Amino acid sequence: MQNKSMLAPAEPFSKQERDAVYKAIHTRRDVRDQFLPDPIPDDVVERLLEAAHHAPSVGFMQPWNFITIREQADRERVWQAFSSANDEAVSMFPKNRQSKYKSLKLEGIRKAPLNICVTCDRARNGDVVLGRTHNSNMDLYSTVCAVQNLWLAARAEGIGMGWVSIFRDADLKGILEIPSQIEIVAYLCLGYVDQLYSRPELEVKGWNKRMPLKDLVFKGKWRGNS
Amino acid sequence: MQNKSMLAPAEPFSKQERDAVYKAIHTRRDVRDQFLPDPIPDDVVERLLEAAHHAPSVGFMQPWNFITIREQADRERVWQAFSSANDEAVSMFPKNRQSKYKSLKLEGIRKAPLNICVTCDRARNGDVVLGRTHNSNMDLYSTVCAVQNLWLAARAEGIGMGWVSIFRDADLKGILEIPSQIEIVAYLCLGYVDQLYSRPELEVKGWNKRMPLKDLVFKGKWRGNS
Repeated sequence: MQNKSMLAPAEPFSKQERDAVYKAIHTRRDVRDQFLPDPIPDDVVERLLEAAHHAPSVGFMQPWNFITIREQADRERVWQAFSSANDEAVSMFPKNRQSKYKSLKLEGIRKAPLNICVTCDRARNGDVVLGRTHNSNMDLYSTVCAVQNLWLAARAEGIGMGWVSIFRDADLKGILEIPSQIEIVAYLCLGYVDQLYSRPELEVKGWNKRMPLKDLVFKGKWRGNS
Repeated sequence: MQNKSMLAPAEPFSKQERDAVYKAIHTRRDVRDQFLPDPIPDDVVERLLEAAHHAPSVGFMQPWNFITIREQADRERVWQAFSSANDEAVSMFPKNRQSKYKSLKLEGIRKAPLNICVTCDRARNGDVVLGRTHNSNMDLYSTVCAVQNLWLAARAEGIGMGWVSIFRDADLKGILEIPSQIEIVAYLCLGYVDQLYSRPELEVKGWNKRMPLKDLVFKGKWRGNS
């Protein structure tokens, strides 16, 4: 009966609590430039990382690690790695998109006082992991859930966060001394913010449009709308 | 100046609002068996899917689709696909873990009144996507962020959710008529709950232990603790 005894009433959320969760979800932004220089206190960082650590994980594997990067010299080296990869990225776009691409600020590595690299240790629980037997990506997906928890917790703390993905993997692994078998899932920039875009920055800046939800939902099967 | 005008004060969260976000994060569970049969009203499903749709996405790509599955016959077919894959899964574990594995209920496909299959259309914005140039997984990761938004919104609505990952991809694609080039990221079971485990079910049932956060955090570099 031990299992039964661990079941507890699912505390309902009040209207105010529910609205707060939706406020975090709907006002969260991918922040690149609005970071204030104020340091984030250790107890706040701890709350953010506890939120990440309480993400769901396949087989309760908890495959994540978090590397905090605060030193300016370290962030400068990471920015150099971004910058070099971003030069490559520009050239991949059609000519008519390149100047627009170059006009966008895509990271806040040096401006955000705290950077966090989130990794996935795919071997943590051996080769066979409950729930990963048929989809080998599940541990990576667990790690992404941790990132999204961190993002929403940050929003609730008045902290903006941006996810930078334009790196050559080997560059970042070299700088942070990450072993080859560990997978980098996300490189995050965090800092307090007093302003945020009211809509996603890439929408505001005309890079892409919000799709209507109704076009993305099917009933019963692919393209089903019965 | 259009961009500047879209910046608005980052509305701070009250202590109560912040606590509500953490409550959703810390009391969210991967639910397999506590689902009540009550149908989830359409307007609530819409709020959940809007929360998912407001996840961050690489290059504002919004690569996701959501297939809602409510018919019992459809859920029965999906369960058959799970069951067949799960029989394979059992045999992958060491002999001394197999009876424990078999004792765990790993899905609520038939019990949960609403199932949602979340997919990623990797070709949605063409070959070259802002932010995906150096990490080809980024669109999958965006889709996972949508799943985690959905999960937390569900918790705030009094709805439990479970993520089922034990399927052969081709089985699920066949049942839901999903084209081969579309990637299935998650198959979710949702229903109202009045009880939840106070700790993760796989921890309660002795499958795996919670790791101490301090062992997972490094400073400055891998294994750094200065």
